[in-house]
Amino acid sequence: MRVALLTHEAFPDEAKTAVGLLRYGDHEVRAVVDREFAGRRVADVLDGVQDAPVVASMDDVPEVDALIIGIAPIGGRFEESWRPDVRAALERGCDVVSGLHDFLADDPEFADLAAEHGGQLRDLRRPPDDLTVAEGTAGGVDATVVTTVGTDCSTGKMTVSFELRDAARERGLDAAVVPTGQTGVAITGWGLSVDRVVADYAAGAVERLVQTPEEKDLLIVEGQGSIVHPAYSGVTTSILHGSAPDALVLCHEAGRGTINGYESFSIPPLPAVVDLYDRLAAPVSDATVVAGALNTRHLDDGAAEQAVAGYAEAIDAPACDPVRNGVADEVLDAVV
Amino acid sequence: MRVALLTHEAFPDEAKTAVGLLRYGDHEVRAVVDREFAGRRVADVLDGVQDAPVVASMDDVPEVDALIIGIAPIGGRFEESWRPDVRAALERGCDVVSGLHDFLADDPEFADLAAEHGGQLRDLRRPPDDLTVAEGTAGGVDATVVTTVGTDCSTGKMTVSFELRDAARERGLDAAVVPTGQTGVAITGWGLSVDRVVADYAAGAVERLVQTPEEKDLLIVEGQGSIVHPAYSGVTTSILHGSAPDALVLCHEAGRGTINGYESFSIPPLPAVVDLYDRLAAPVSDATVVAGALNTRHLDDGAAEQAVAGYAEAIDAPACDPVRNGVADEVLDAVV
Repeated sequence: MRVALLTHEAFPDEAKTAVGLLRYGDHEVRAVVDREFAGRRVADVLDGVQDAPVVASMDDVPEVDALIIGIAPIGGRFEESWRPDVRAALERGCDVVSGLHDFLADDPEFADLAAEHGGQLRDLRRPPDDLTVAEGTAGGVDATVVTTVGTDCSTGKMTVSFELRDAARERGLDAAVVPTGQTGVAITGWGLSVDRVVADYAAGAVERLVQTPEEKDLLIVEGQGSIVHPAYSGVTTSILHGSAPDALVLCHEAGRGTINGYESFSIPPLPAVVDLYDRLAAPVSDATVVAGALNTRHLDDGAAEQAVAGYAEAIDAPACDPVRNGVADEVLDAVV
Repeated sequence: MRVALLTHEAFPDEAKTAVGLLRYGDHEVRAVVDREFAGRRVADVLDGVQDAPVVASMDDVPEVDALIIGIAPIGGRFEESWRPDVRAALERGCDVVSGLHDFLADDPEFADLAAEHGGQLRDLRRPPDDLTVAEGTAGGVDATVVTTVGTDCSTGKMTVSFELRDAARERGLDAAVVPTGQTGVAITGWGLSVDRVVADYAAGAVERLVQTPEEKDLLIVEGQGSIVHPAYSGVTTSILHGSAPDALVLCHEAGRGTINGYESFSIPPLPAVVDLYDRLAAPVSDATVVAGALNTRHLDDGAAEQAVAGYAEAIDAPACDPVRNGVADEVLDAVV
C-alpha cells in the first residue's frame, strides 16, 4: 500500500505513529505531510528508516492509496487544522486511517466524502463490540510471553517490542508482536488499542490478543503507559495482568526524571519501579523484570554507553539501547 | 424526592441497588415494586433501613416523582417483563432512573412517553461525552480524600464508603461519598460507573468526580475490584491514582482466600496486599492503608469479633465490620 503520513507540526519527535510506520511498517511511504517541516526529507533527521519527502499539504502528495494520521496527541482528539488534508485525501478517493479517539467515520462530512468517492475511513481505535471481562486464561498460552513495561509513556515500549521480534527472528525463533496501541496496530494490521476499550474489558481484550497469534516461540506484548503514571496506570495494569506474561522488559528514557507532561510527578528510583512491577505482576503471573531497554536518543555514543551500563546496574538485569546498537545477545537470552 | 423501586423477583437478596437506596439514600421510598414479594413490607426482611410496602405493580404505587430500577442483573440488560411498569410510570409523568447497560432513553416507546408526559429518562451508566485523560490534579482537593480498596470484588467497598460517610456526619463532619459504580450512583444521584468509561479516561473520570462535591471535610471514594484481580485491576488502579487519596481503607471478606469466580488465583497474604496498595499509591500520593473493614456476614458474633481482631493485626491498622457493629471510633480517627 502506498501511503502518506499526516504529522502537522509534530515531525519527527511528536509523530510516533509516523516514525513507527517508517521504521517497521510494510507500506511504501510516498510523503510525510507536515506544514512546519515541509521542504526537507525524512532522511535529514532519521537513520535506518524509509526515506520520503516532507510536504506542506495533500496538494503536494503524489498518488497514494491512503492517508494515515501519523500523530497520537495526548487525549487523541482530532485537530480541526487537519480537516483540509483529510478532506483532500477523501476527495481523491483515498482511504484515511486514524488511531485517534475521535472516530473519523463519525464525522458527517468525512463519512459523506468517503461514500461519495469510494474511500474507506478506518478508525483503528474502534474496539470490537463483543469484548468482555478477562477470564484469567492468558497464562495458558504455549509461547513465551514477554510484556514490555515502562517508567513512563513514550519510553520506547513499541519500538523495543519490534526490535525484540526482529532479533528473535534472526535467531530463528517464531516471534510476533502483540500490538496494544494504534501505532502497533497500524504497523502490523491487527491488534487492539487497549486504551480505547471500556475499562472493565481492557484486561479481557489483552487476554484475547495474546491467544490470537499462531507464532509458537515468542510473543512480545506491547505495553502502554506506566504503573507510576497518574493518568494511564490503569491501562498499564490491565495489560500487565491481562497478558499474564512470563517475563517483563523495562523501558526507560535516559535522563528522564519526571512523568512527561506531568512534571510534578517524579519517576521513582529505578530499583523501586522494578520492584513495583514484580510485585504487581505476582498475583497473576511469575513474571519479573528480566531485562531493560534504554532510550538514549538525546545522548552521544560515549554517554549512551555509560548510561546503558548504569541502567543495567540500577535494574539489576542486562540492558541495551536496541535502536542505537540493536538488541544485545544477553537481553534476548534473558527473555527467551 | 418520592420514589418507587422496581425489583421484580429479586427483592431483597438480588436487588442490591434497591437495598442500597433503602439503607443509604436520601429519597423517600414510597413502595417497592416486586411481583413475587408483593403484600409484605421491607421491614419484614431488612433491619435498619427505611420501611415501605412491597406492591405488585406501578398500579399500586402511591404518588411518586420517580421510578428507580433497583436491580443490577449480570450483563445489565433490560428485562421486557419490566416494560409495563416503566410505561405506567412514564404515563404518570414520573422520571425513570436506571443503571442498566441498556439505556432506556434509547428505547423509542419510552422516549416518546417521556416527551409526551414530561418525565425524564435518566440512564446513570451513560458516560458523559466530554471525558478525557487525567491531568494529575486530584491531589489539590481541599477535603481529606479516603479511597476504599479491596482484596477482591464484592468485599463491601460501597457499603463501607456509606457507613464511613454516616459515621463522619454523626461526628459533625461535612462528608460525602464519591460513587464509582451504578449502585452508588443510583443511591446518591450523581457519580459515574468508572468501569464503563474508556480505559484511557478512567483516571480522568475519577479525578473529575473528586473535584465535584462541595463537602469540605471528608470525601470517601468508592473503590472497585482489586489490584490483585486478574480482570478488574486496571479499574482499581485508575481509581487509586485518579483519586490521589490521602488514605486508604482496605475491605476484605472474612475467610475468602481466592478471587471470587477466579478460584485459581489466590488472594495474597494480607500484609502483602497492604504493602502492594501502599507501594502502588506512592508515585501519585502519600496514601497508605490506615484502616480496614472486614465483611463478617458468614460468621456468628463470636467468630466475627475474633476475625476482626485477627484482620486488624494482619493489616497492622484498626479495623471493624461497619455493617455488624458500626464504624469503630479508631477506624474513623484513622481516616479523618
